[in-house]
Amino acid sequence: MDELVFLDATGQAALVREGKVSSTELVCAAIERIEQLNPELNAVIHPMFELALERAQAPLTGPFSGVPFLLKDLGAEYRGTPLTDGSAFVAGRYSSTSDSELVRRYKAAGLVILGKTNTSEFGLLPATEPEHFGPTRNPWDTSRGTGGSSGGSAAAVATGMVPVAHASDGGGSIRIPAACCGLVGLKPTRGRNSLAPYIGDIAGGIIHEHAVTRSVRDSAALLDVTAGPMPGDPYCPSPPQGPFNKEAGRDPGKLRIGLGTTPLNGAQTHPQCIAAARNTAALCEELGHVVEEASPGVESTKLFKSFGQVMTGYLGWTIAAWEQRTGKIPAEQDFESATWQMFQNSKKQTGADYLLAWQRLQECCRQFAGFFTEYDLWLTPTMACPPAPLGYFDYSPEHRSRYIARLGDYTGFTLIANATGQPAISLPLHWMEQENGSQLPIGVQFTGRYGDEAGLIRLAAQLERARPWLHRHPPIDFCK
Amino acid sequence: MDELVFLDATGQAALVREGKVSSTELVCAAIERIEQLNPELNAVIHPMFELALERAQAPLTGPFSGVPFLLKDLGAEYRGTPLTDGSAFVAGRYSSTSDSELVRRYKAAGLVILGKTNTSEFGLLPATEPEHFGPTRNPWDTSRGTGGSSGGSAAAVATGMVPVAHASDGGGSIRIPAACCGLVGLKPTRGRNSLAPYIGDIAGGIIHEHAVTRSVRDSAALLDVTAGPMPGDPYCPSPPQGPFNKEAGRDPGKLRIGLGTTPLNGAQTHPQCIAAARNTAALCEELGHVVEEASPGVESTKLFKSFGQVMTGYLGWTIAAWEQRTGKIPAEQDFESATWQMFQNSKKQTGADYLLAWQRLQECCRQFAGFFTEYDLWLTPTMACPPAPLGYFDYSPEHRSRYIARLGDYTGFTLIANATGQPAISLPLHWMEQENGSQLPIGVQFTGRYGDEAGLIRLAAQLERARPWLHRHPPIDFCK
Repeated sequence: MDELVFLDATGQAALVREGKVSSTELVCAAIERIEQLNPELNAVIHPMFELALERAQAPLTGPFSGVPFLLKDLGAEYRGTPLTDGSAFVAGRYSSTSDSELVRRYKAAGLVILGKTNTSEFGLLPATEPEHFGPTRNPWDTSRGTGGSSGGSAAAVATGMVPVAHASDGGGSIRIPAACCGLVGLKPTRGRNSLAPYIGDIAGGIIHEHAVTRSVRDSAALLDVTAGPMPGDPYCPSPPQGPFNKEAGRDPGKLRIGLGTTPLNGAQTHPQCIAAARNTAALCEELGHVVEEASPGVESTKLFKSFGQVMTGYLGWTIAAWEQRTGKIPAEQDFESATWQMFQNSKKQTGADYLLAWQRLQECCRQFAGFFTEYDLWLTPTMACPPAPLGYFDYSPEHRSRYIARLGDYTGFTLIANATGQPAISLPLHWMEQENGSQLPIGVQFTGRYGDEAGLIRLAAQLERARPWLHRHPPIDFCK
Repeated sequence: MDELVFLDATGQAALVREGKVSSTELVCAAIERIEQLNPELNAVIHPMFELALERAQAPLTGPFSGVPFLLKDLGAEYRGTPLTDGSAFVAGRYSSTSDSELVRRYKAAGLVILGKTNTSEFGLLPATEPEHFGPTRNPWDTSRGTGGSSGGSAAAVATGMVPVAHASDGGGSIRIPAACCGLVGLKPTRGRNSLAPYIGDIAGGIIHEHAVTRSVRDSAALLDVTAGPMPGDPYCPSPPQGPFNKEAGRDPGKLRIGLGTTPLNGAQTHPQCIAAARNTAALCEELGHVVEEASPGVESTKLFKSFGQVMTGYLGWTIAAWEQRTGKIPAEQDFESATWQMFQNSKKQTGADYLLAWQRLQECCRQFAGFFTEYDLWLTPTMACPPAPLGYFDYSPEHRSRYIARLGDYTGFTLIANATGQPAISLPLHWMEQENGSQLPIGVQFTGRYGDEAGLIRLAAQLERARPWLHRHPPIDFCK
């Protein structure tokens, strides 16, 4: 069964199509694995097994028919199931009355949704340790976190609970957990996957949805079934030339790649993260690409400050919108202290303050995007540090100054692509050996041009072929 | 010379190319005409004749080489020239230090910029009667307004001061003055013309830039020289299949058109505006299109209220941004009373309030855009009333309730396309005879699918061929 659960979604779907395994068998295996691993990992915070078994027995159509899937418990509306956004303020007070467009497309693709995965409160933190649901543990080292905010999905996919899972990214929240858990994390171009109907644009279009996967081809094939605007979407990027799935087999051509190892906040990067990027650069050169040390010039203080202000407006909106949907008045005890503080700040922010911050952030976007007139891609570590121990983002008063720096360690390479809307992918191309002999995954990120997921997918698949990672699994005992 | 000044830009550019007239001759003719007509009309509020003459004598390249042009005094940055946004708060305090991207592209196309045209304060009002610069008069009836906020540009183009002029549209501000002055006013898709570098997205991307023109082909050809994103732009719609200019000669095919004569605020429409839309519908049927009475279902109260709140945030940002650029602290006496009131309101609006309003507005966008899954186009009057007498938007305390209703009369058919980002065009297809025998233009609007300016241009050119309007000129005495 281990072989089956570690097949990617494309592989599992093929077995179902060929009649070698049934949807119910796949779903039962996934349930068994979740029941076995979840007590330790806390990846799935709301199981929906009965619903899944019912669905597995129904006739399914679509390229992923019968393949087990999980939704991140943030934003993804699945009619009749609870949604909490990782917050005690929402938990127990809301059940979706309809499917969001993305969930509708997942269902139409034949995916069988088994539950909701853990996330940080409102997805704010790039770690998955919400007070209300408890932390998700990293299956490569359970003393460490999974990154966030899609850490529940990442832990689930890394351990073969499901082959692919929904994730979303407002500052790195697909790519960071993918890096921490040894997965592929593609953040698509702004507007590629519709946020309909509840959100169109909010907070300047920094939130982009997709998935964490084990293989590049899964990330591409899943994007094929979800991409494309809905009427009324504020952003409609150029449609791809053809299926993303086909790109995974295409020659990427000779690319011009800028290599950067210093995050945009100017912080120190861990030697293993530098090694991850440099080794990947060397591999790219072996494959015929041109790599030069080069990074975009961005006013870093302005970038991080204005990003924080935009997120403050976003959080104020989120809580106000939840208040309207649940009728619950926000009170301090319903929130984590960092969230509550940010919410208090949001009340002092005028609409004009918010828009000024967004304007400054866009100035940084232009500084960054100009780099891509010269280079096809920016190659960096995904994070400036390895996956950190649980509790790394400690917001207690004596550690607040460190808290901000640590946010930068996680998001210093990632958040700019949320502001610009450019696609970016984290690939599991490096492993760091710990003192106890265990391996920790280190992610490598490529940021591409607006609208050009195809280019990222071509290169990512080439790198996967050159240095495969699918045989690597977390070494945890209970994964037997 | 009358024949020359009433040639469209494409025609004037051809004469220059063929050596039949020089750029300097065109520019001198334009200057002469502005000097002759402007004292009565007040279309050009900042002449830049010396700069223009200098430029006319320089070697020019580009498809519009030597053609006289005007910039709206809102947003368009031309290095070394003043910009006021129609406000006493800004006037005399700011001179652009660089060209905006749009201006750079106008220059690169060979256009010769002769000055800046009048607009409402910060472009807020769909009328061009700023207190600081005084009203622009409608050349078809100088007791009436030109509409706004691009009314200065519209009056200039209608009277042959220039063949085309820059305009921008945040709620109808290209289409309304085009309707009031008997011109073509195309508001392109969101992001088609870049707002770089000063603005990318602000206020949810409701502001779209282009021009007012006399011919459809000019609107298309000008869009060809300005369209296309800049690095870092937040919105990058699909590029067109080919030049817009070519679309003007193409068969539009058999279109499915929904005809609506009630504005989205549910107000009464003037019989002549209804007649304009109905006659155009009949013409469309003659041309082989299918026309049905149909309008999108949109929650109108929510639409107008949330649009107003988004504009409030936008104004708060605008004034704050000007304060930062000029160092001038806002004081009541520097603003029109309606602007000042809105600015006071903006100070009570939190970022979350702003984003909630934007979210509600996007719900209306989805309601509206769904209509275009069934129809190719929505055909309406551009406005619910004919061009109104000067002073129609009286904000004095006893007339405030009427003020809002009147805003709706002007923008009830137009502002939704700013929220959705869809392209829309106003065409001069109807004339209303006044009691004194004079003619007033009544505009007809087509709203198209996101990204499909090409479809609008094909149909607009077909209608222009079927019912030409280029021979119609304002009857004012001083236009001799």
